[in-house]
Amino acid sequence: MAKKNIGKHFDIYPMPVVIVGTITDGKPNFMTAAWLTKIHSDPPFLAISLGERQYTAKGIRQTGEFALSYPSIDQAELADYMGLVHGDRVDKAKDIEIFKGSLESAPIVRACPVGVECRATQTIDLPHDYLFIAEVVNVYATESVLTEGKIDPVKLRPFVLTMPDNSYWALGDRIGSAWDIGRALIKP
Amino acid sequence: MAKKNIGKHFDIYPMPVVIVGTITDGKPNFMTAAWLTKIHSDPPFLAISLGERQYTAKGIRQTGEFALSYPSIDQAELADYMGLVHGDRVDKAKDIEIFKGSLESAPIVRACPVGVECRATQTIDLPHDYLFIAEVVNVYATESVLTEGKIDPVKLRPFVLTMPDNSYWALGDRIGSAWDIGRALIKP
Repeated sequence: MAKKNIGKHFDIYPMPVVIVGTITDGKPNFMTAAWLTKIHSDPPFLAISLGERQYTAKGIRQTGEFALSYPSIDQAELADYMGLVHGDRVDKAKDIEIFKGSLESAPIVRACPVGVECRATQTIDLPHDYLFIAEVVNVYATESVLTEGKIDPVKLRPFVLTMPDNSYWALGDRIGSAWDIGRALIKP
Repeated sequence: MAKKNIGKHFDIYPMPVVIVGTITDGKPNFMTAAWLTKIHSDPPFLAISLGERQYTAKGIRQTGEFALSYPSIDQAELADYMGLVHGDRVDKAKDIEIFKGSLESAPIVRACPVGVECRATQTIDLPHDYLFIAEVVNVYATESVLTEGKIDPVKLRPFVLTMPDNSYWALGDRIGSAWDIGRALIKP
């Protein structure tokens, strides 16, 4: 297949959507984010990039802590809202119920089925963003999304974001098992 | 909703699946990865975590370059295979056609509809992994996945990975527009 150079814009893959919770200037604050990834297994670490002017980045720098709340498609509207409104202008925590785990400054949106408490260990300065490296301290989940104690994506019903078409998508068909379907190509 | 502490395991969100291409010890080499995220818009940067013992990590450290090939569900078996077999034991490049863009050491899997050339700018040492920070240099796409010059997820048909159930999923229903559906919750 021929390939066309379409510039250096890079937005193409399905991104997870999370609501980041912080205590900023002493108050709970939330925003939506999609630039994050696991980076290390054991102990579990993740990396998340946030705009340096974000009220949320300010909170992480103040307390060293934050939480990720994973919405299901039932909270898609709420997650989108949390990304539309600025925390320094609107108190986004006012109308939602907060779940507090073991950390002081890592508020979780109770309506979201999964919450992940994180402790930032390193901050990397990017031109207009901070890349926070963080250790996962605890994961909390609503019983209804668990199968044998583990999070079940069919029950969680997460959604992903694609750009530049700016769309949220549910998961569709299961197309196979990882670390398995490729065995067909291994030569004896 | 009550929340249950399920430990600190963190694998839950849908992850993108890419095939990372490098030149390692002078030869093209590929592996599958899922721990990556965009971290900065303009100029476009991404972060990707790779095991420090990976042949792929070795290649990036040797040349400072790599490519990401984005498979569609048609290449799911190939992508899974690239993650099952070790590059220092099997020549995974032997049976595939390679597309070369502008960089010397960033081989793209031609069968994959999208290829992203990257130049590593910073390496962060993690206990058993390297987190590579990289600038996107060029994105190449097959015409058939473009709509008005931009990548169209409906045409690309990407897939995502969930763990610990180790499943690949196609995208399902479009559930709404980002930066839009949350407007319903903004108070006048």
